[in-house]
Amino acid sequence: MTEIKGICPIIATPFLENGEVDYESLENLVKSLLLGGCHAVTLFGIAGEYYKLTDEERKKMVAVTVKAAKTVGGKTIISVTDHATEVAVKSAKMFEEMGADCLMMLPPFFLKPGAAYLYEHMKAIGNAVKIPVMAQYAPEQTGVAIAPDVFVRLQKECPNIIYYKIECKPAGPYVTNLMKLTDGKMKIFVGNAGFQFIECSDRGAIGAMPGCSMYDVYLDMYRKYAEGDRQGAIEVHNRLLPMLNHIRQNVEQIISFEKRILARRGIIKTAYCRKPSYDTDAYFDKIFDEFYAEMAERYGW
Amino acid sequence: MTEIKGICPIIATPFLENGEVDYESLENLVKSLLLGGCHAVTLFGIAGEYYKLTDEERKKMVAVTVKAAKTVGGKTIISVTDHATEVAVKSAKMFEEMGADCLMMLPPFFLKPGAAYLYEHMKAIGNAVKIPVMAQYAPEQTGVAIAPDVFVRLQKECPNIIYYKIECKPAGPYVTNLMKLTDGKMKIFVGNAGFQFIECSDRGAIGAMPGCSMYDVYLDMYRKYAEGDRQGAIEVHNRLLPMLNHIRQNVEQIISFEKRILARRGIIKTAYCRKPSYDTDAYFDKIFDEFYAEMAERYGW
Amino acid sequence: MTEIKGICPIIATPFLENGEVDYESLENLVKSLLLGGCHAVTLFGIAGEYYKLTDEERKKMVAVTVKAAKTVGGKTIISVTDHATEVAVKSAKMFEEMGADCLMMLPPFFLKPGAAYLYEHMKAIGNAVKIPVMAQYAPEQTGVAIAPDVFVRLQKECPNIIYYKIECKPAGPYVTNLMKLTDGKMKIFVGNAGFQFIECSDRGAIGAMPGCSMYDVYLDMYRKYAEGDRQGAIEVHNRLLPMLNHIRQNVEQIISFEKRILARRGIIKTAYCRKPSYDTDAYFDKIFDEFYAEMAERYGW
Amino acid sequence: MTEIKGICPIIATPFLENGEVDYESLENLVKSLLLGGCHAVTLFGIAGEYYKLTDEERKKMVAVTVKAAKTVGGKTIISVTDHATEVAVKSAKMFEEMGADCLMMLPPFFLKPGAAYLYEHMKAIGNAVKIPVMAQYAPEQTGVAIAPDVFVRLQKECPNIIYYKIECKPAGPYVTNLMKLTDGKMKIFVGNAGFQFIECSDRGAIGAMPGCSMYDVYLDMYRKYAEGDRQGAIEVHNRLLPMLNHIRQNVEQIISFEKRILARRGIIKTAYCRKPSYDTDAYFDKIFDEFYAEMAERYGW
Repeated sequence: MTEIKGICPIIATPFLENGEVDYESLENLVKSLLLGGCHAVTLFGIAGEYYKLTDEERKKMVAVTVKAAKTVGGKTIISVTDHATEVAVKSAKMFEEMGADCLMMLPPFFLKPGAAYLYEHMKAIGNAVKIPVMAQYAPEQTGVAIAPDVFVRLQKECPNIIYYKIECKPAGPYVTNLMKLTDGKMKIFVGNAGFQFIECSDRGAIGAMPGCSMYDVYLDMYRKYAEGDRQGAIEVHNRLLPMLNHIRQNVEQIISFEKRILARRGIIKTAYCRKPSYDTDAYFDKIFDEFYAEMAERYGW
Repeated sequence: MTEIKGICPIIATPFLENGEVDYESLENLVKSLLLGGCHAVTLFGIAGEYYKLTDEERKKMVAVTVKAAKTVGGKTIISVTDHATEVAVKSAKMFEEMGADCLMMLPPFFLKPGAAYLYEHMKAIGNAVKIPVMAQYAPEQTGVAIAPDVFVRLQKECPNIIYYKIECKPAGPYVTNLMKLTDGKMKIFVGNAGFQFIECSDRGAIGAMPGCSMYDVYLDMYRKYAEGDRQGAIEVHNRLLPMLNHIRQNVEQIISFEKRILARRGIIKTAYCRKPSYDTDAYFDKIFDEFYAEMAERYGW
Repeated sequence: MTEIKGICPIIATPFLENGEVDYESLENLVKSLLLGGCHAVTLFGIAGEYYKLTDEERKKMVAVTVKAAKTVGGKTIISVTDHATEVAVKSAKMFEEMGADCLMMLPPFFLKPGAAYLYEHMKAIGNAVKIPVMAQYAPEQTGVAIAPDVFVRLQKECPNIIYYKIECKPAGPYVTNLMKLTDGKMKIFVGNAGFQFIECSDRGAIGAMPGCSMYDVYLDMYRKYAEGDRQGAIEVHNRLLPMLNHIRQNVEQIISFEKRILARRGIIKTAYCRKPSYDTDAYFDKIFDEFYAEMAERYGW
Repeated sequence: MTEIKGICPIIATPFLENGEVDYESLENLVKSLLLGGCHAVTLFGIAGEYYKLTDEERKKMVAVTVKAAKTVGGKTIISVTDHATEVAVKSAKMFEEMGADCLMMLPPFFLKPGAAYLYEHMKAIGNAVKIPVMAQYAPEQTGVAIAPDVFVRLQKECPNIIYYKIECKPAGPYVTNLMKLTDGKMKIFVGNAGFQFIECSDRGAIGAMPGCSMYDVYLDMYRKYAEGDRQGAIEVHNRLLPMLNHIRQNVEQIISFEKRILARRGIIKTAYCRKPSYDTDAYFDKIFDEFYAEMAERYGW
């Protein structure tokens, strides 16, 4: 079974200025990330504005992403975000057939379904496919808390639900709890823009799924940590924090500024976001530009 | 322009036991409601499980609903529930072209967009079509509060955004506030299962959009009220309350029991709900059956 | 150990028109409820506006309540609402020394403490006293969900934490779950204005803790149910529902109208509520008056 | 009227190991902060665990704080946190009589009071005293959003409600909006641990109210910014971020670690927090210690 670890960024959804999905930029983005060293790319994370896409667009985006990834020999993780279990299972099967290497699944959250339904939803997706599956826990965004035992039961009872992306706040104790309850067997990814990358790596996380615009910074941090240069990783992390602290004050804000970075780096054509989005202003942009200049110089953007 | 008033229930989405949409039952349901006297039918309300449907299913359901309604000379209200403004505008145009008499729109709520974005979203939908449009305000379900002035501005600046479905709690003062701020010109519908039908009608509401399974009870209440028999309407309302109080303890619960009523009345084939849904038990069912028996006898179900 | 069951209403906090606590009305209210047949009275429920009182006022209110209850041979339940465990333990001991027959405890909720802290908080209160203790579960008001196993563990490990007031929505399945997990040993009270009194009694609840203004109606319902006249109880419940449905659209609203009923019945001097409260209007009052007239006639108010 | 600006940290509430308030440490803390250059000290912020204190403790803490501050010629801001307007007004008057230089007020949030009540609450406090008053806007912690016009109206109609502590997320646009709506007259303080100190200062904020344990770092940053060395301020801010990012993953966590810093610096006796608090672990502590060592060396702790 395909193994996933390392930096697997969330693919931003590029749009043209007319609001249509920009599949050409998507292709270029996928290739850039994988050729740039990313261990996999992840389609339809929250940072990918999945909730602003039609079913048809999502299908076409999967095709483009999988093809682009295969062209450059990279791996894809595709997220199943449908609310209804019946629909999610069909999407899961379709994404597998279309060539995804791994699935992610965001449990349904509208009207706050109970734990039993969330468990059954995720289990049904896992059972529907043969490829590995990752469960996403993002209570800050969804408003739905899930007790660790739901994930522990999934890990024990569903052989292919292997990976867990944990982005509650604070994530650390939750991660350590999951590790304890599974005798260290759970394979955990850091979410939430990697704000707690060092802490969660210390606790046993095997990778991170941040936004994609500064993938090279995350790769730098990950490699240093993986090679035992923890202090070097901390230094990279510390230099990244001012930018993250500035552009990640809310979710639509970081989505918007990730795209601005990607566009400025020439990886996608425009920074267009579908509405509702985030309105910036001159005060905000000034600091963004200052931090961008610093990062750009250091990483040769 | 088509005028909407009266009882315009939310169409339940009938499923077959295999989880597929049951278009045959949908057709029968639409006809039954309209032939039964409903002033219009509303597709894709929250009670219609719209969030469990694919884009393709929704499109086919619109076609079936519009055709069935036209066959019996009735009106349709179709809700635009897409999160992204760009996508919502396309859906709005498509629904208009497909023959909807009126649109409803549920403003986006994931990640809690700001008031300016909500206003622009609704305005864009209104501007995209020529048919009348209704704005839905359901903060209990969406978690997003909207100040009255957003709706007042819509009412003043967008000639075809005529109707407002108000289901905050308490709804009464909000309704009266809207009426004051628009010199009584706002056309308001009662939501929230009609729990405050009498109070909101006293305040000037012109109709209600409850679940569809007991449409004849709501029609009875509405007609009595409209004909000046307010006391008679209160009596109908009071007899309905025990059932509503029992089956509307949360949203998936009432969705599930509305369908059980529809199936028992022979209007749709099964009470199947896509997951996540609501698990009942014997205690709950016992009371439901008691109340059902009473209603069935009185209304000849 | 004192046994608690039946109708144990939440004492409203009477104020004078100048905003000071009206201890005279409090004394009269306590006596009226107990002489009227209430099985106990409960001080500092949410409906008692406990969060608007100073520590000193609360202490004096306990003294007045306990003395009034003892005068007429009735029982008191006093709620410990302090956020900090250290402070709550002191209040618990003080209330016991002052003569409370039973304590209630509202677990802390500000900043959403984790389950382990909530368990330790309640356990510490239980351990600090010898009288029986009741845990209150009111997630709708506090915003903090608590899993059933927290209460089950309390029931098993703390011999005097005997009673559980369950007012989540829906309460029924939660109640049945608690009963199953404790082999039917858990002693459960219905909260939430008794909206689900019949259902929860069917499930094994042994009493209810509604607001106090219509205590005689709740007693009527309870007695009929207890004597095996379930249908009679349902009829009382059905006649109560229109009033509850009208005045319990939000919490400050029912607090305000409970006091209006008490004042109109001559049990307390004024309906004054400390601010923030609820602003009524003529539309609302009209229906209230209609329902009041009906209840007053039936119950001889 | 006393003018407030600069760094006015929130006083941590020191406890003894037995859970009692440690007034001796409080006195030492207040003097240390003011002699260390803080422009004022703030009692009963959320970071001060105000919600874990009795009325009597709060009164004694005000006395100790005011006396200690006067001894060293410093200013005090005391927060009025009572839910009921009637009670809050009394506290406000008492704090003024006891010698506070300025009041802060946290608008009530339990049961989510409406905007009109929040306005009246704050206005009543302002009218009750002659000293300047600051309104705190902390929706992340309280769950209650307040529209800018409420604060603008207060600023215009209440001459002594001069200061506004803004800690929504993102704070920047809200701050700029307030400045625009008051022609730049509003005097705004940065909250939320100063995460957006630079951005909000660029937007016109005149000070910050962070936790107190690293007051010298905030003073360093503030002075550099005030003297025109914005780049120097950014550098200080960037070096502070790793620590803040680590210890401020939730509110009880930063409260707990602020005290650990204070105790390690010898300013208070113990790091004890009343329960519910935050449980740390070895992984967390390791990083904390690393960051502490760096800060300690740079600032001579």
